[in-house]
Amino acid sequence: MPTYNAPTRDTRFVINEMLDLASYGNLPGFENATQDMIDTVVNESGKFCSEVLAPLNQIGDEQGCTRHEDGSVTTPDGFKEAYAQLVESGWTTLGGAEEYGGQGLPHVMSFAFEEYIGTANQAFAMYPGLTSGAAAALQAAGSEEQKAMYLPKMISGEWSGTMNLTEPHCGTDLGMIRTKAEPQGDGSYAITGTKIFISAGEHDLTSNIIHLVLAKTPGAPDSSKGISLFVVPKFILDDSGEPGERNGVSCGSIEKKMGIHGNATCGLNYDGATGWMVGEEHKGLAAMFVMMNAARLGVGLQGLAQAEVAYQNAVEYALDRRQGRALTGPAEPDQKADPIFVHPDVRRMLMDAKVFNEGMRALCLWGALQVDLTHKAQTEEERQLADDLIGLMTPVIKGYGTDKGYDIANNMQQVYGGHGYVKEWGMEQFVRDSRIAMIYEGTNGVQAMDLCGRKLASKGGRAIQAYFAAVEEEIASAKQVEGLADIAEKMEAALEEQKAATMWFMSNAMANLNHLGAGAHHYMHIMGIVTLGFMWLKQAKVAAAALEGSPEDAAFYEAKLTSAAYYAERFLPDAAALRRKLEAGSENMMKLPEEAFATAA
Amino acid sequence: MPTYNAPTRDTRFVINEMLDLASYGNLPGFENATQDMIDTVVNESGKFCSEVLAPLNQIGDEQGCTRHEDGSVTTPDGFKEAYAQLVESGWTTLGGAEEYGGQGLPHVMSFAFEEYIGTANQAFAMYPGLTSGAAAALQAAGSEEQKAMYLPKMISGEWSGTMNLTEPHCGTDLGMIRTKAEPQGDGSYAITGTKIFISAGEHDLTSNIIHLVLAKTPGAPDSSKGISLFVVPKFILDDSGEPGERNGVSCGSIEKKMGIHGNATCGLNYDGATGWMVGEEHKGLAAMFVMMNAARLGVGLQGLAQAEVAYQNAVEYALDRRQGRALTGPAEPDQKADPIFVHPDVRRMLMDAKVFNEGMRALCLWGALQVDLTHKAQTEEERQLADDLIGLMTPVIKGYGTDKGYDIANNMQQVYGGHGYVKEWGMEQFVRDSRIAMIYEGTNGVQAMDLCGRKLASKGGRAIQAYFAAVEEEIASAKQVEGLADIAEKMEAALEEQKAATMWFMSNAMANLNHLGAGAHHYMHIMGIVTLGFMWLKQAKVAAAALEGSPEDAAFYEAKLTSAAYYAERFLPDAAALRRKLEAGSENMMKLPEEAFATAA
Repeated sequence: MPTYNAPTRDTRFVINEMLDLASYGNLPGFENATQDMIDTVVNESGKFCSEVLAPLNQIGDEQGCTRHEDGSVTTPDGFKEAYAQLVESGWTTLGGAEEYGGQGLPHVMSFAFEEYIGTANQAFAMYPGLTSGAAAALQAAGSEEQKAMYLPKMISGEWSGTMNLTEPHCGTDLGMIRTKAEPQGDGSYAITGTKIFISAGEHDLTSNIIHLVLAKTPGAPDSSKGISLFVVPKFILDDSGEPGERNGVSCGSIEKKMGIHGNATCGLNYDGATGWMVGEEHKGLAAMFVMMNAARLGVGLQGLAQAEVAYQNAVEYALDRRQGRALTGPAEPDQKADPIFVHPDVRRMLMDAKVFNEGMRALCLWGALQVDLTHKAQTEEERQLADDLIGLMTPVIKGYGTDKGYDIANNMQQVYGGHGYVKEWGMEQFVRDSRIAMIYEGTNGVQAMDLCGRKLASKGGRAIQAYFAAVEEEIASAKQVEGLADIAEKMEAALEEQKAATMWFMSNAMANLNHLGAGAHHYMHIMGIVTLGFMWLKQAKVAAAALEGSPEDAAFYEAKLTSAAYYAERFLPDAAALRRKLEAGSENMMKLPEEAFATAA
Repeated sequence: MPTYNAPTRDTRFVINEMLDLASYGNLPGFENATQDMIDTVVNESGKFCSEVLAPLNQIGDEQGCTRHEDGSVTTPDGFKEAYAQLVESGWTTLGGAEEYGGQGLPHVMSFAFEEYIGTANQAFAMYPGLTSGAAAALQAAGSEEQKAMYLPKMISGEWSGTMNLTEPHCGTDLGMIRTKAEPQGDGSYAITGTKIFISAGEHDLTSNIIHLVLAKTPGAPDSSKGISLFVVPKFILDDSGEPGERNGVSCGSIEKKMGIHGNATCGLNYDGATGWMVGEEHKGLAAMFVMMNAARLGVGLQGLAQAEVAYQNAVEYALDRRQGRALTGPAEPDQKADPIFVHPDVRRMLMDAKVFNEGMRALCLWGALQVDLTHKAQTEEERQLADDLIGLMTPVIKGYGTDKGYDIANNMQQVYGGHGYVKEWGMEQFVRDSRIAMIYEGTNGVQAMDLCGRKLASKGGRAIQAYFAAVEEEIASAKQVEGLADIAEKMEAALEEQKAATMWFMSNAMANLNHLGAGAHHYMHIMGIVTLGFMWLKQAKVAAAALEGSPEDAAFYEAKLTSAAYYAERFLPDAAALRRKLEAGSENMMKLPEEAFATAA
């Protein structure tokens, strides 16, 4: 059975050393995030995920969820008990608002936990994950009454949440939503329609499920401008605020999926269910986007999560499995064969994983800090910069992070040879589970268009200019550090590729928007590559500085320097190739008629 | 349910127009491969696969194979009847030797069929596929008596075959084999040991199964030099040559796998089973390699196969599913949304698939022709050239073809959005089924080392020089064709990258073999990219010539020209990036100690 150990040392390195979170102690909510507190949260929540949740990952896959005739759903063996432990542990409350029972800690802290829970057991993690997204939307758009009614028990985890967007005919294009909301005269609405692909839509873990549902009021515009958001609890709250009457929403089916079997992906039928509007009429999409942006960062983290657990197990296997001899002569002549760890092609895959995972961890936590700074930085200028950067980066973290995370998970499966393909070893589950992250919360094609069609040009390109300036500053300061000049120069070249690609869009996309669409995926990957490089520069600088002091764990910092150099030589070269593809434009891509794609007999 | 139509027009284009098979009519075995014969075989075998085998693909995945308590194995519903139809149809006999009941047609013909059967139903295709590999090994290394005993019924498909290499502790490193073969004094051997991952190892489709087994005779060298090959029939033949006494080989388990559920992957226990040596003692590996080389080409074809069926279905979906509007304005304003086919990012994925699939089909059939020419070309020089080229290309077709084919299958799943992740639509099965091709018959890392560690330097680099000359000749002649100069120039640049990478190996690998291992994967991909470009030059030249004659289906040829241009602009740029990675060498890759890969707390 595969195992998982939370990489707490690396998380602490990023939070304490790279981000230097303690230096933000003067900001609201950060005052409690002392280094002691950080270390305790990281270490203990990591322990909980490794010891309680990881052992349920494979059984969750094997058993999946079961829908019964009455529409109720049972989660896999052990999930219910583990969920109760999770609620008791309080780990779900880290980032919640203090007035509703949360700990009000920086988002960075809950994001560190979110990595661990998703790595230990992604299907399980989605239950509290959806709750936290739904709570964020209520927090942002709900009335004071709604917040008081729902948030405390959602933050504590006693109740869970969902987000209901997709319908059978309507995924990305939410303007096509058909679910209706009829006012009932008492301030409530009767919600009727069918929603599909609802993660955690029905289950046996909590005493109530709070559905957030997009629907259209009578006479609403027939477009995304006519969508409103509703809160629809599975059990309507009674006067004491406890779950009362069963609402008219039921699980009609659960999907058979490629992976994440332990999470119930439901078709939900709303038959005149009672709901209450959240925020303003016709402004539902904006409210939902609060949730979506947080969720997209969380999905990016899933790209890291499955890559990380697959990596940890592949390392073990590579050290244990003996096959063949090192190219440079037997490494362990007294054994019949060397561990496959000695083979460069195995090491290539492990190193790719190591530098992606550590770079992505740094990026996700850096991104979480930007989310915090968006709300809490001292000056308007700082808040705006953080908001610009995280808005720009969200599709990159989601899109590049999950594309590349999936590649890495596949490479780790490859380390196992034939044993990677059989279920027993658990590697193929990591691949199947990680595949969904490229699809949900907006496919990666949608992320690429969000980046290139909206974020790049927004406010005259203010965000991308700020990003370029930040990366340039990092490059300039790395050049001053002994041993980092070569990495900095490679980064400079890669950044030039991104700038040139940006310029190409500026010069060509106006004339033909298809040029933008044709290059969006390439651009997102260029930016992902450069951004992880940006994170590696930051890490390398911190490591170089730490080594000046001859620290006890010098090997940890030396590995950071080697990893940064490996990243620069093995990941950055793709930026140039992607730019050339982008600059090819859309002509040949869009030229062929439908008929040319038919299979000719 | 997904569907499949054999792409017969494209196959005929490659065989009749690009390879001009008719021009080889003077060679033995080719005389019957008239254009009429080719068209009939292609069209009718394609029809059989599309109509009989494709409909069983999804049920095969759902049901899988069942092992019963007595060790017998039942295949999924419909497999037995379909197999009987296959035998009756005679499609398995296309390439078999005429003296044993085969049709003796060129390998190109059976390879065209092999694509179709693998595309329609990979798990099913592996039953006759393994048989044909085992028959090839017997044909090459067996005694006249053995051939007479086994080949006729293997070629007809009445009996099936397997290859038994892997043991629990021993995969790539066959020198570690423990299975024993004790001489019994009557010319037979008692075979004892455990083999795992035996595809088609036990099933209910045929009246006998002919296992080819690697084992060690007493006192054999404790290395790959001590391995012998044995034929071990499930039922020992009686005096009339019919299956008689049950042999001491049994299926102890079947693996639960990520995909290809319809094929029984068995653990086989040999308990003093009676076997007969095939070929010479201690020369088993060489005999098995005959089978492996053929099998590796077949596995390369599987990369194409799953990419092709996934592509066909994704095209249908992209034309049917409506979501959003074209970037350049509504394409179908009277509908609520446009088909997703209008979105550049969807078209990018479809075009990538189209040009990979058609390029790979051309490469596989070109490769099959080289196999034919190895044996049948008129002069020793021509035979040697063909042998050099296909020896060099086999790991590229297997390694690059399956890496890239898997990527394409994943992209086609991506076209479906959330629907791609649920089982109902069948797309996730194509991904799971295609994943194995990167692993079996030697992982793609093993292929890369076969290419770079053996094939490149073999005979003073004769093969790679011949390959460079062939590609250069194609580039030079394409430059003379109106409209192809740009593609030819891009190919010239890509070829220069490959040459530079080759030179880098020559200058650096001697000093440190790890440099070779560190770059082998990159090199294999460079060569795959250049080789498909080589095929696109060939196709473009044929298409340009055909268009001179204003043919009826001009659109087919015009699409070839656009596809060639798209390939050049979207695939070739990676060659330069891969070369840069290769030239980074092994220093940083191999630098970190084991401890640096452990998860630090």
